[in-house]
Amino acid sequence: MAFEHEIRITWGDCDPAKIAYTPRLPWYSLDAINAWWEHYGGAGWYQMELDQNVGTPFVSMAMDFLLPVTPRHRLICKVWPNRLGETSVGFRVDGFQDGKLCFVGKFVSVFIDAGEFKKSPPPERIRALVAAHLVEDE
Amino acid sequence: MAFEHEIRITWGDCDPAKIAYTPRLPWYSLDAINAWWEHYGGAGWYQMELDQNVGTPFVSMAMDFLLPVTPRHRLICKVWPNRLGETSVGFRVDGFQDGKLCFVGKFVSVFIDAGEFKKSPPPERIRALVAAHLVEDE
Amino acid sequence: MAFEHEIRITWGDCDPAKIAYTPRLPWYSLDAINAWWEHYGGAGWYQMELDQNVGTPFVSMAMDFLLPVTPRHRLICKVWPNRLGETSVGFRVDGFQDGKLCFVGKFVSVFIDAGEFKKSPPPERIRALVAAHLVEDE
Amino acid sequence: MAFEHEIRITWGDCDPAKIAYTPRLPWYSLDAINAWWEHYGGAGWYQMELDQNVGTPFVSMAMDFLLPVTPRHRLICKVWPNRLGETSVGFRVDGFQDGKLCFVGKFVSVFIDAGEFKKSPPPERIRALVAAHLVEDE
Repeated sequence: MAFEHEIRITWGDCDPAKIAYTPRLPWYSLDAINAWWEHYGGAGWYQMELDQNVGTPFVSMAMDFLLPVTPRHRLICKVWPNRLGETSVGFRVDGFQDGKLCFVGKFVSVFIDAGEFKKSPPPERIRALVAAHLVEDE
Repeated sequence: MAFEHEIRITWGDCDPAKIAYTPRLPWYSLDAINAWWEHYGGAGWYQMELDQNVGTPFVSMAMDFLLPVTPRHRLICKVWPNRLGETSVGFRVDGFQDGKLCFVGKFVSVFIDAGEFKKSPPPERIRALVAAHLVEDE
Repeated sequence: MAFEHEIRITWGDCDPAKIAYTPRLPWYSLDAINAWWEHYGGAGWYQMELDQNVGTPFVSMAMDFLLPVTPRHRLICKVWPNRLGETSVGFRVDGFQDGKLCFVGKFVSVFIDAGEFKKSPPPERIRALVAAHLVEDE
Repeated sequence: MAFEHEIRITWGDCDPAKIAYTPRLPWYSLDAINAWWEHYGGAGWYQMELDQNVGTPFVSMAMDFLLPVTPRHRLICKVWPNRLGETSVGFRVDGFQDGKLCFVGKFVSVFIDAGEFKKSPPPERIRALVAAHLVEDE
């Protein structure tokens, strides 16, 4: 039921070990979270920040890498919010290739007033959007 | 006493919020860990993998982001091994700008036989190198 | 009639001027050329190199940047081969957003025996593939 | 006599062919041009744009790739302005490893009023800076 974001892994993503270079995995994960916002909220971070004055800078990330990611298959990132606080939101991103779980990531952001770069509760519309898809970790 | 790796943050590292885009921070951290290997062991990952058949793929990372990173100051990454197992090694990377702690990262790799892509205890020389600089987390 | 490769431009692609940072434009172009190979030949560079022993390292690129690229629209890259020599191939990539031409790029590769890293005429199948879609610059 | 900017090529810069992935070469070149501005003008693009309201978006680039770039040696980028117009500036970047020329790049920017994103002659101080180091192509 989770939102799925597909990423094409390429030659240029890989290091000489012939697998995607580790720091690309958080990069893909953030691409997937941005795509979640775009899909459900109609606006990615660019539009949220510039048009709606809502920023969501990250305060933490934690990832486990289970299997190498390669260009042999598309990377399917399942994304969902797993945490919603007064001024924070967490996302989980599970990356799959060929049906196998390659990595699990957890990412926490705070909501800010983008102009002020100051913590601030999100607009009600955004809170409702996250709440509607929230699946807290067990 | 920790090894310090200096990184020049530039315009191109920053997103429209005028701060380094989040996935660059694990990227810088891995650059810093690679520089640690190069400084103490005389070989970065490229040489370790291709010349010595020792690979160190990552199995996890965890980062806390405390302050934004910008091009206003050089980024100083303090790096040290914080964990040494039979076939694994952990590194801690603390990123500072202008004397202030901007992020803390913990990264765990396994040692592999690079040709086989199979877990394998590291050569004694490499184990000794890590052991000599090991500072376990409190 | 040209092959079109769509790219989602994001917040993280942009610099503080709120437009895609210049070196991303050759990066997108190469993604588009790789997608061309994948679409017509059934194999991107990763598979060409590792499975077919055919490498295509670049020997030149030239790009003109006409309009900024932003996350406001998808980037549509039109790609076609514009040159075919004994051991070389050229690609043209035209990048459009919202129907407007944002950049024009010309890229030249040589065919190599990947194992030897030595110039070598491509397999006939690959030559025929390029020839079938070749549109030389006027 | 040209300004030299040193870059550490790493494992993560390389693709499975064990050489720096092509789009990194324009990226390094822009890092080198930014370092030129920082060295001679005391301000990189970030400070020029945000503190001085001077932007320098690129309108073209042309590069020839002569030899692969690898982590075996530091990359030394020689940088100098090779063109100065009323509202434009060109830079040449020659990349060397182990004393051998690996690539040659030519990059043209226009000066803009950053706030307006409109072409505008640069401040006299910046014009003088470029003029003092100008070496036009033969």
